[in-house]
Amino acid sequence: MSKKNQSIRLTRQHKRRKGVVGIFGREAKSHDAEVSKVALLVLGMLKQEFPLLVFRHRKSVSKKEINAALQKIDKELGQTLFLSNASIKPDGGIIEVKDDNGDWRIVLVAEAKHQGKDIENIEAGKQVGKKNNQDIMAAGNAIERAHKNISEIANLMLAENHFPYVVFLEGSNFMTHDVVVTRPDGRKVTLTYNSGELNRLDRLTAANYGMPINANLCKNRFVNREDSCLMLQAASIYTQGNGRRWLGADMAAVMMEVAKTSLQMLGRDLFMQLSGGKQGTAK
Amino acid sequence: MSKKNQSIRLTRQHKRRKGVVGIFGREAKSHDAEVSKVALLVLGMLKQEFPLLVFRHRKSVSKKEINAALQKIDKELGQTLFLSNASIKPDGGIIEVKDDNGDWRIVLVAEAKHQGKDIENIEAGKQVGKKNNQDIMAAGNAIERAHKNISEIANLMLAENHFPYVVFLEGSNFMTHDVVVTRPDGRKVTLTYNSGELNRLDRLTAANYGMPINANLCKNRFVNREDSCLMLQAASIYTQGNGRRWLGADMAAVMMEVAKTSLQMLGRDLFMQLSGGKQGTAK
Repeated sequence: MSKKNQSIRLTRQHKRRKGVVGIFGREAKSHDAEVSKVALLVLGMLKQEFPLLVFRHRKSVSKKEINAALQKIDKELGQTLFLSNASIKPDGGIIEVKDDNGDWRIVLVAEAKHQGKDIENIEAGKQVGKKNNQDIMAAGNAIERAHKNISEIANLMLAENHFPYVVFLEGSNFMTHDVVVTRPDGRKVTLTYNSGELNRLDRLTAANYGMPINANLCKNRFVNREDSCLMLQAASIYTQGNGRRWLGADMAAVMMEVAKTSLQMLGRDLFMQLSGGKQGTAK
Repeated sequence: MSKKNQSIRLTRQHKRRKGVVGIFGREAKSHDAEVSKVALLVLGMLKQEFPLLVFRHRKSVSKKEINAALQKIDKELGQTLFLSNASIKPDGGIIEVKDDNGDWRIVLVAEAKHQGKDIENIEAGKQVGKKNNQDIMAAGNAIERAHKNISEIANLMLAENHFPYVVFLEGSNFMTHDVVVTRPDGRKVTLTYNSGELNRLDRLTAANYGMPINANLCKNRFVNREDSCLMLQAASIYTQGNGRRWLGADMAAVMMEVAKTSLQMLGRDLFMQLSGGKQGTAK
């Protein structure tokens, strides 16, 4: 990312964030904000901004429910279940809105993943490796597990035209530009973002079909092939390009943007409530 | 699985396996067969069974190639790449056939995953846990990483109507029936297949939309929605229900079945070669 783009992005972030910080104060300004707490703030913001609609937050969704949704699409799907209480627990949970038919529809699913503690280690003067003489720890592959929940929620939402799945990445394995970190003894260490030892962003981009990161991809993309049409459900992947932690207010701003896109996509089924009419029965 | 179904399945496996063992002898009978070696046997079998076609095996596919395939579908896709040499390496590699236009088309991708060493530990009389006094080790979640490569290859094959991705599961975390294991001291330990401590099959079934396991799902499923059509690319998930290792010949038989389904699905583009005609230019 060029410095100019970066500064434009930061300005945008700052603007988006402004209202959020105003409303929620200190909590939203914290760099230690947990996505689960921020999701509850976002629930409050949605209630405030759309008083005619009813929202709820839940921490998990059962495989049984996912199977039921799949069976509704096609009876051959959603048949297998080995543990009857199996469930999916995105760490930011799931926010839903009640539609005009009284059904709960998903407007936001959020997860946050931290991988790579190199910045923290260097700033603390801690060296790593077998002989404790390296500045940088070779990156792992834990992030690949993120694909599981993305696939589960995509299956749950196969009948929808939107996919409001947000993944917040932070840590030195997800940088988008070089970062210089200063050790307590004054020595400066440069973390090169596009080093194979550090960068693990490519391990996740299958989930958004290689579309841009830091973009709201909530609206499903339809592409035409010669003999058929494909619907693509892409996760919206947001990374702190500097390897640092997310600010709660920035997460909240992204989550609000994605949730609002969901509401817009669901507009046909929220129309009666939004227009003040009574609950309709037409789908 | 009932005992009867199990015995039918074993008979079928035995029949499928027969030819394979006959051709390849000892290697195919080994329980320590690695999927990478078996894939090379399958390459040989395909060459033998379809002498008019040209096959190749490769160990990896680059993200660049996946991005190029995505861009062919839609220019907005396949844009991001952080490490220019990033690649996907399914442990059994990729087998391809040359079509009538001279393009390589994927007919098989195979992976094998082992998770859960309880049977081996119990048979060796080794107890586990903090105090070394437990028979069973609580299962981990490494299997969730399998979704990454599945998503990558699904993206690579978005233009195809088949998805010949086979995952072979083995180990005590993937059992489909209870297993009794005898310790060296004679004590018998029952491993309960549907215990939350052990079973991790549910962590992978998002990759086949909850369709049956131990089934060839190579042919993509198309389902109609109110306003559009969906193409589902499902991985074919095969498990050793008894928690033991796969026999090479059984893996080879499954792989041949899936590869042949691929060839059939590609029939239109292999027709000239199979009918002895010259290479056509029509797609």
